[in-house]
Amino acid sequence: MSSIYSALKQECYEANMELNALGLVIYTFGNVSAVDRKKGVFAIKPSGVPYEILTPEDIVILDYDNTIIEGELRPSSDTKTHAYLYKNWNDIGGVAHTHAMYSVAWAQAQKDIPIFGTTHADHLTTDIPCAPPMSDELIKGNYEHNTGIQIVDCFKDKGLSHTEVEMILIGNHGPFAWGKDAAKAVYNSKVLETVAQMATLTLQINPNAPKLKEALIKKHYERKHGINAYYGQ
Amino acid sequence: MSSIYSALKQECYEANMELNALGLVIYTFGNVSAVDRKKGVFAIKPSGVPYEILTPEDIVILDYDNTIIEGELRPSSDTKTHAYLYKNWNDIGGVAHTHAMYSVAWAQAQKDIPIFGTTHADHLTTDIPCAPPMSDELIKGNYEHNTGIQIVDCFKDKGLSHTEVEMILIGNHGPFAWGKDAAKAVYNSKVLETVAQMATLTLQINPNAPKLKEALIKKHYERKHGINAYYGQ
Amino acid sequence: MSSIYSALKQECYEANMELNALGLVIYTFGNVSAVDRKKGVFAIKPSGVPYEILTPEDIVILDYDNTIIEGELRPSSDTKTHAYLYKNWNDIGGVAHTHAMYSVAWAQAQKDIPIFGTTHADHLTTDIPCAPPMSDELIKGNYEHNTGIQIVDCFKDKGLSHTEVEMILIGNHGPFAWGKDAAKAVYNSKVLETVAQMATLTLQINPNAPKLKEALIKKHYERKHGINAYYGQ
Amino acid sequence: MSSIYSALKQECYEANMELNALGLVIYTFGNVSAVDRKKGVFAIKPSGVPYEILTPEDIVILDYDNTIIEGELRPSSDTKTHAYLYKNWNDIGGVAHTHAMYSVAWAQAQKDIPIFGTTHADHLTTDIPCAPPMSDELIKGNYEHNTGIQIVDCFKDKGLSHTEVEMILIGNHGPFAWGKDAAKAVYNSKVLETVAQMATLTLQINPNAPKLKEALIKKHYERKHGINAYYGQ
Repeated sequence: MSSIYSALKQECYEANMELNALGLVIYTFGNVSAVDRKKGVFAIKPSGVPYEILTPEDIVILDYDNTIIEGELRPSSDTKTHAYLYKNWNDIGGVAHTHAMYSVAWAQAQKDIPIFGTTHADHLTTDIPCAPPMSDELIKGNYEHNTGIQIVDCFKDKGLSHTEVEMILIGNHGPFAWGKDAAKAVYNSKVLETVAQMATLTLQINPNAPKLKEALIKKHYERKHGINAYYGQ
Repeated sequence: MSSIYSALKQECYEANMELNALGLVIYTFGNVSAVDRKKGVFAIKPSGVPYEILTPEDIVILDYDNTIIEGELRPSSDTKTHAYLYKNWNDIGGVAHTHAMYSVAWAQAQKDIPIFGTTHADHLTTDIPCAPPMSDELIKGNYEHNTGIQIVDCFKDKGLSHTEVEMILIGNHGPFAWGKDAAKAVYNSKVLETVAQMATLTLQINPNAPKLKEALIKKHYERKHGINAYYGQ
Repeated sequence: MSSIYSALKQECYEANMELNALGLVIYTFGNVSAVDRKKGVFAIKPSGVPYEILTPEDIVILDYDNTIIEGELRPSSDTKTHAYLYKNWNDIGGVAHTHAMYSVAWAQAQKDIPIFGTTHADHLTTDIPCAPPMSDELIKGNYEHNTGIQIVDCFKDKGLSHTEVEMILIGNHGPFAWGKDAAKAVYNSKVLETVAQMATLTLQINPNAPKLKEALIKKHYERKHGINAYYGQ
Repeated sequence: MSSIYSALKQECYEANMELNALGLVIYTFGNVSAVDRKKGVFAIKPSGVPYEILTPEDIVILDYDNTIIEGELRPSSDTKTHAYLYKNWNDIGGVAHTHAMYSVAWAQAQKDIPIFGTTHADHLTTDIPCAPPMSDELIKGNYEHNTGIQIVDCFKDKGLSHTEVEMILIGNHGPFAWGKDAAKAVYNSKVLETVAQMATLTLQINPNAPKLKEALIKKHYERKHGINAYYGQ
């Protein structure tokens, strides 16, 4: 009953429940994981279990090579993507994946989300990247593992830092987001969905809307994240 | 008071209440049925009864030729469509019909919903078909019965399998969905509505959005439905 | 405390509360009235009173010439429009006015709402009319009274029957709906808003979407409203 | 515990909670302030404190030069904008700022919101102004203070009165609204968001939708705000 992973499972459980409470998932189309770097394991939602009956005890514990360490249920079908990210980006603490409406629409449209305003700039200074669909060979191979590769490679190709840009769209699929812990990954998923809807409406109102100017991008990002940040307590 | 159809009525009642709880109906613009193959009957919502006062006892029992077997209320006006589907597709267990917003919009636009992403591919591997409006003679005839014919014929014409594609749009009208039981029919109605909204937004963002590539369609469908499926428990 | 108009006030109160519960109003931007034909009076919401504190006793009673018969509060600023409709259409029992989102958008777009599907045809057989904006003289005159004239004249000009078409858009303003009682007027307001949203999305998906064919219009309307109607109990 | 600013803090607290309850903010992306003209101070939300744990005691009191008079938390990062408005417009009693969806979309589109209907005209007689993005020098300088300058200057440039037009969009950022007290500022934020959504949909339905004619603008504004106003009690 008691487990050395209880706190980690609880963190993962709460983040998954929050993902649902924020309206980012229908049915079980989403999953959040949380990592314990000292123990070298992460916790993730079991596959296909409805949020209404999910309990902290259902959460599955795995190492970064996808070996189940604790848990009787099958982990999320996207587990290998989470594992790959934890293995390659050793400074992230949580990962979230959703099929939220506007994020998915941009992923299906295969477009980066342009940085149109300060809501966006409060969180990142670039367009939100959309990774192009995977090659057929990779799809037929170790698909979810390769989705992890796709994410990491896209960041390398575009010269982006995963600590400054904590979100991505996978072309034709949907969003992944991460952060210092599972709660931050969920927060970033909600920010991404909000910014995605704002960009959709901005282009509806003005198809030639200009991007945010450099000075405003810098100002807003730095007041939240810079050395002299003055947002929050 | 007690009835040999109590369990069937309860299943039907719960599926109808779920349809409403999912936000797929306003007023009484929707109906779900459930079949008992052994007894050769199906249960369906009575016509025009608000969800707030609906009880399991109100559910009407009919055979596949639309003869009322039990129940004092008039069955849904779409009953003959349900009956036709049960009679012709003997492996389905439930049918749902709604006037949900985005599903209706695509039906009114008389367009198949293109397969743009993995949310769609997780459930079916083709575009969601939109049956063309019925001929005038059929409309003037046994209309709801003929709507059943329209559905079955559309699947024949397009070479679709009703066990692989569990949903359709009726041009100018709205969606029907089905499945192994009433709950699955309701689930498919919600998936259809979600996918319909995602496709609408995808085309708004990128009118030239490409369809999902074949390898991804196959991969996603098979991880949920194939022999080696690894989604769910 | 007791009043011969208590039942009428209660009907009016409940219809106003339902208008709000259906999400058709923000703040106090809407009003419903109910008529008592025998007594020759109607009941209407007081102006600017928030729904959270509205009570049946607050409802104002007036005759068709806008003389207050009972009530200490100032009646809705749109009262004269309601009065004009009751005076001219002696077979209606309730009137509702909202600033609901999609209904207002079509009114501001100054477009009739095309009949695109059966949800629409279940309730009326024509496009939903949008009255052109009022002439400047009429606006400067007895404005709300003249809005009543505008509605009645629009129906005459277009050859529409107010018992078959129980709703209208006032160009640049918003919708009015009516019916056999106040609850039906509210119901029609919700149907109008739903159909308005469906039509908006239909045109987004297919700007050339054809209108519903005549045979389907007839069929759907008659199964709900014809001599052999078989919808409802 | 007791404070001479308790009533002011309570007013500010309630207005902030209402902003959240109206669906105008996600997370902490918004802030409302309230002024006490006699004492020469204003109260504002602390920065980054979630609404679920916010209490009246958390509210920060400052003078118009941004000196903290009472409170242990850091005030909203937008505080200097509020201060500038209170200092320059000595007849306003409350200010609200949000990142509400449609208001932000118009701000990102860098477009004034055209006056399309009476919902708009019930509150103001002109387009809702969108201030062009700030110059780079001002951004790098005292940014939030300069946002105040930007607002006041925009009103001067356009010849607008801040008592007749109680709202503005800041290009690429979002809306500010004000009024006789904090509750009115919140009310105006909700009206702005509603009118912004209506205008978006109006242009979707009819890209050539004409603006509201002068006579209707005047009529609607005056029945709510003129000498002979007859809206409300």
